Amino acid sequence: MIVRPRPHWLRMLFVWRGSILSDIAPQLICTTLLAVAVTLLHGQVFNWKIPLTFVPFSLIGLTLAIFLGFRNSTSYARYWEARMLWGSLLNETRSLLRQALTLSDDPARAQGLTRQLMAFVHALRHQLRGTDGDADLRRLLAPDDLARLAGTRGKPSMLLLMMGEWLREQRRDGTLAPVLVPAMEHHLGRLTEALGGCERIASTPIPFTYAVIIHRTIYLYCLLLPFGLVDQIGVMTPVIVAFIAYTFFALEALGAEIEEPFGLAANDLALDAMSRSIENVLREMIGEPALPEAEPQGFILN
Amino acid sequence: MIVRPRPHWLRMLFVWRGSILSDIAPQLICTTLLAVAVTLLHGQVFNWKIPLTFVPFSLIGLTLAIFLGFRNSTSYARYWEARMLWGSLLNETRSLLRQALTLSDDPARAQGLTRQLMAFVHALRHQLRGTDGDADLRRLLAPDDLARLAGTRGKPSMLLLMMGEWLREQRRDGTLAPVLVPAMEHHLGRLTEALGGCERIASTPIPFTYAVIIHRTIYLYCLLLPFGLVDQIGVMTPVIVAFIAYTFFALEALGAEIEEPFGLAANDLALDAMSRSIENVLREMIGEPALPEAEPQGFILN
Amino acid sequence: MIVRPRPHWLRMLFVWRGSILSDIAPQLICTTLLAVAVTLLHGQVFNWKIPLTFVPFSLIGLTLAIFLGFRNSTSYARYWEARMLWGSLLNETRSLLRQALTLSDDPARAQGLTRQLMAFVHALRHQLRGTDGDADLRRLLAPDDLARLAGTRGKPSMLLLMMGEWLREQRRDGTLAPVLVPAMEHHLGRLTEALGGCERIASTPIPFTYAVIIHRTIYLYCLLLPFGLVDQIGVMTPVIVAFIAYTFFALEALGAEIEEPFGLAANDLALDAMSRSIENVLREMIGEPALPEAEPQGFILN
Amino acid sequence: MIVRPRPHWLRMLFVWRGSILSDIAPQLICTTLLAVAVTLLHGQVFNWKIPLTFVPFSLIGLTLAIFLGFRNSTSYARYWEARMLWGSLLNETRSLLRQALTLSDDPARAQGLTRQLMAFVHALRHQLRGTDGDADLRRLLAPDDLARLAGTRGKPSMLLLMMGEWLREQRRDGTLAPVLVPAMEHHLGRLTEALGGCERIASTPIPFTYAVIIHRTIYLYCLLLPFGLVDQIGVMTPVIVAFIAYTFFALEALGAEIEEPFGLAANDLALDAMSRSIENVLREMIGEPALPEAEPQGFILN
Amino acid sequence: MIVRPRPHWLRMLFVWRGSILSDIAPQLICTTLLAVAVTLLHGQVFNWKIPLTFVPFSLIGLTLAIFLGFRNSTSYARYWEARMLWGSLLNETRSLLRQALTLSDDPARAQGLTRQLMAFVHALRHQLRGTDGDADLRRLLAPDDLARLAGTRGKPSMLLLMMGEWLREQRRDGTLAPVLVPAMEHHLGRLTEALGGCERIASTPIPFTYAVIIHRTIYLYCLLLPFGLVDQIGVMTPVIVAFIAYTFFALEALGAEIEEPFGLAANDLALDAMSRSIENVLREMIGEPALPEAEPQGFILN
Repeated sequence: MIVRPRPHWLRMLFVWRGSILSDIAPQLICTTLLAVAVTLLHGQVFNWKIPLTFVPFSLIGLTLAIFLGFRNSTSYARYWEARMLWGSLLNETRSLLRQALTLSDDPARAQGLTRQLMAFVHALRHQLRGTDGDADLRRLLAPDDLARLAGTRGKPSMLLLMMGEWLREQRRDGTLAPVLVPAMEHHLGRLTEALGGCERIASTPIPFTYAVIIHRTIYLYCLLLPFGLVDQIGVMTPVIVAFIAYTFFALEALGAEIEEPFGLAANDLALDAMSRSIENVLREMIGEPALPEAEPQGFILN
Repeated sequence: MIVRPRPHWLRMLFVWRGSILSDIAPQLICTTLLAVAVTLLHGQVFNWKIPLTFVPFSLIGLTLAIFLGFRNSTSYARYWEARMLWGSLLNETRSLLRQALTLSDDPARAQGLTRQLMAFVHALRHQLRGTDGDADLRRLLAPDDLARLAGTRGKPSMLLLMMGEWLREQRRDGTLAPVLVPAMEHHLGRLTEALGGCERIASTPIPFTYAVIIHRTIYLYCLLLPFGLVDQIGVMTPVIVAFIAYTFFALEALGAEIEEPFGLAANDLALDAMSRSIENVLREMIGEPALPEAEPQGFILN
Repeated sequence: MIVRPRPHWLRMLFVWRGSILSDIAPQLICTTLLAVAVTLLHGQVFNWKIPLTFVPFSLIGLTLAIFLGFRNSTSYARYWEARMLWGSLLNETRSLLRQALTLSDDPARAQGLTRQLMAFVHALRHQLRGTDGDADLRRLLAPDDLARLAGTRGKPSMLLLMMGEWLREQRRDGTLAPVLVPAMEHHLGRLTEALGGCERIASTPIPFTYAVIIHRTIYLYCLLLPFGLVDQIGVMTPVIVAFIAYTFFALEALGAEIEEPFGLAANDLALDAMSRSIENVLREMIGEPALPEAEPQGFILN
Repeated sequence: MIVRPRPHWLRMLFVWRGSILSDIAPQLICTTLLAVAVTLLHGQVFNWKIPLTFVPFSLIGLTLAIFLGFRNSTSYARYWEARMLWGSLLNETRSLLRQALTLSDDPARAQGLTRQLMAFVHALRHQLRGTDGDADLRRLLAPDDLARLAGTRGKPSMLLLMMGEWLREQRRDGTLAPVLVPAMEHHLGRLTEALGGCERIASTPIPFTYAVIIHRTIYLYCLLLPFGLVDQIGVMTPVIVAFIAYTFFALEALGAEIEEPFGLAANDLALDAMSRSIENVLREMIGEPALPEAEPQGFILN
Repeated sequence: MIVRPRPHWLRMLFVWRGSILSDIAPQLICTTLLAVAVTLLHGQVFNWKIPLTFVPFSLIGLTLAIFLGFRNSTSYARYWEARMLWGSLLNETRSLLRQALTLSDDPARAQGLTRQLMAFVHALRHQLRGTDGDADLRRLLAPDDLARLAGTRGKPSMLLLMMGEWLREQRRDGTLAPVLVPAMEHHLGRLTEALGGCERIASTPIPFTYAVIIHRTIYLYCLLLPFGLVDQIGVMTPVIVAFIAYTFFALEALGAEIEEPFGLAANDLALDAMSRSIENVLREMIGEPALPEAEPQGFILN
């Protein structure tokens, strides 16, 4: 996630980092060079004038608008749903810890659950990013729990089961009245939904065929565009083509970036900072010192 | 579901599989041939010049945008809701199994419920796809349960009832405190909603009249288009007509494909892989070895 | 609801049933005849040339797009919400019956509730359609219940109360533990919401003023259109006007049709088939033979 | 709310009531007179020709579409959310009364709650409309309750508290088992949400700056439009300007009307009829005779 | 939040406060001056005529519409979600206080919870706005609670824990039956969600790259526009450019303003007035005199 105060309107025109320009530079340069060539040759290819006007482009604009609008809003909806799921992680862990501290008659045992909650959040992050979470788990979990997790494929899933077992022990030992168990089960269920929601977003991209059709339509549009403009606006053709191509390519690239919001690209969610922040909220509730907050590196939080 | 890493931007222009081109080739070729004929005859039919310009097409574009945008977003909404319902299958089965293992005083009996949960997921898949689920059911269920399911029309529905009976037995035998039953009933109710939601999507298409009007508008538009373009862009007419027709036909065909997300088309949901994956999650929770995961065939998961 | 397999793309161009053409034929013919007259008179009225071009139409297109898009999406949202409410009827009746069979210690008494659930679904259908539901109620309910319903205005509402009384009896007789009552009350509450939702959609149309403004804009647009086109496209004017008017009129007529989704029009919800299908699901759960499923008449299910 | 059967398509073109024309007549007449003047002067102001074409208007159309579409959909979303909240009043009062009649061991005491529920609905209506609700409250409430409400600012809020006290008394007197209380508390919580939702909509308009920018854009557009059209369509200018201005002004006026859905304008919600209808539903449940239903006055229900 | 009755349509054209004009004056003046210069020089730069027409602008309009529509609807969605979360604060605190007064057998102890609820709302406001909340907390909380809050980073989070402890004490002292605890826990959980939701909106802006691309597209568009218009509309160029630039800049500025709805800008949410109003609702429920309501300053509520 890019974290920076909104620059002055003039400065913002020349921001480089976060402008996604670096990702689309090759295709943007190709398209612009083609436009320059077309302008120099007055729209001719092998001495034959390509008879195009702006009309086809305003007709194609129709489906392009549908495609791009769809891609844009769908990608953002995935991004925002992912953010809400991580927000829900915070809410549910907070509620569970509050309940462990106030519903149980032995608040000291909340320690165990707290560790499992923290480990759950970190394990989910590592699962979503495909990174190795051993360091975080070792830092947080008791050796027994660690041994049980080793070799399992769905670590967060297993941690949920272990939280259920924590509940069972409390109930069996009589420190948690059975009538209060459903209140905690409710939040465990919500945590399960947050886990499943993240897995759903991570495993189901926008149908691939959309990406193909949108991609083709954009590129064909931009490659044909100089022929349609050169008769009307002459030497301004490359400028305008570069401008239009920039907005199309950038929109597509940004869509592809935030569509998979759990990655490490600049605009992806700051899972790292968020899991650390959730851990700190839980730590404060049980009176433990906080970890240092994640600091943005060059305006970017991971 | 098509599962492949996003190709390089240049390669993506020439992807065949997943481009839906094969589905719309006949009508695309017809339209293009017509455009070629119109171009050769300079827009004349029986020596009579059809007096069309681009104006009507930009006016019709208005309703086309509404129709296509509607179809596109509705189809995708159905696709995504179906995906969420299957995500909810994962969440609720996971929660139910966790509860069976930790709320009951006799975790060993979770075995029975686990089999029923797995069978439920597979039976739902077979019901949605109209395939024969006997092999899966026989693999999972006890003979008694199998006999009871034989001949029923709504197998998933009956399995839910059997899970309710599992709950009843636990309650009667005193291994599950009555006060904990509602917590499990809650998730059974959610599972019932997921079942009903899938049945709703499968049994209620987008109103047929939409399909008819959209279809007609697209085809009339594409058939008349060459007459409107030929005076302005001459020999480029077939190229542009093919381009525009491709985007329209592809959008319509893709919409029709994902509108019924439970089928076997390339962009449909990978019910097969998902039910296997849910089964594996449950297996891991009770410590059984996982089935081999489904492998994509030519980038396609079913 | 129109139920038919998607025809071949060529056949679909000439489908009559489901094309809504019959509903809009009069206004379509009027508009086309006007366009023919305008074309023959070269855009003159009483020997005075109406000076119109396409420009005003592309400006008006702006609000038309907003109006039509709004009407279209709102109508469909009402249609789909109504479908979800009926899906929820299925879910909640299924859950209630499962609970009656497994939470109560006297499953035989589920009979009574089952009849009330079936009667509820049928009574709601009859209330929404304004038809006479006596036959269905007599078929299902005990004479006592029938007598109590006679003369009440809100039969489904009264049936919900009777289900509550069923619960009360079970609780009083000790066949349903009080701690399990809330689980069933939950689903009764959801059924109440489904009832209220259907009543809401049936009693609150889209604000009438929308219908008036949209209607006027469409008709004025189509009546003026020939004057704006005749100079550019001459004899093609009637063809294009008919085409554009068809899409506008059809969109409006379809919107008006599905906006009130509980009616008997071709694209309305198949309440008849759905209530029968719910009844059959419940019948199967208590082991009674199913009613014959509703068969589409000329592709149409009511 | 305007309640009338949809008129014939021809009649609908000339409907006056419900066409919102009366609200926008002044500005519409001004704009049209300006267009007439511009036409007579051939687009000149003080003998100087204003050089405008349609181009700027199609560019401005872009933001206009965004603004108007936004205003339209936001206003309608507020209207519909308000309707859903009132639907939820019906659902929750129905559920609470059903529970009072079937969960309590002394159904006779449901009387008190019923009166409070009815008074709640009427008090909310009066609070939202700023009208005096004393007559309704006196009609329904016991003197004690009345005295307690006198002078309170949030009468519905206080009535919710009194319902909570009703529950407390039942619980203390042993006529309502404590384990059943949460089921009724659930619906009290939902009623609280419906109250808060209505207050939210009533107290938070769409940001004022939107209204200002939209208003200005529309009016500037319409005032400049004749200059842009007069060269192309001559004497038809006033007709087209009046047409376009009508659609814009009507859309804005309708948006402003339904944005505050609790008022007394023609398209606002029929709170009066709805609260009466809720009261009648509750009356029927306890076997009391219904009030006469509200009758539309000149097609309008308040 | 700007609170003023909707002015007369004529007056509204000249409203200054709330028109956001002051925020965008610099860039608007720059753009207009450039347009004046371009007009005076007949579109020439260093004696070289820039060959632009309106065509590129209508093509770019496509992505602009997507960008601006996206920004607009996303910003408003954030604004409205934030408003709903604050509405939920009202609902949940109202419900919790009602429960404290009616579910507990010692209503006098509701005092403590009421103070914590009020403090929670004020503390959340201060956290969201980064202001110092000591005065409010000191006014409301007991010294013990104050001491415990001192130095904590998440004061609302800690207050939720303290409410949980209030519940624990009631349960331990036997003034609140354990079976009633989950009903109150439910609302504590919802309050936790409201807190988490506000934190989510405050900490996660719309991806920065969107802001950059939208900003650039708008400014490039407006800077190039005079060259495209000057040949067609001559001296009207600055007028039209100023008009179009105003709508674009205003839309962007308003989006940026309401995107962070917890700030102090004119269109932001009136957190101050809302927390005071929630406090007053709670005060009335326990029979304490109300604070004076917040008064708008120059039509603006904070």
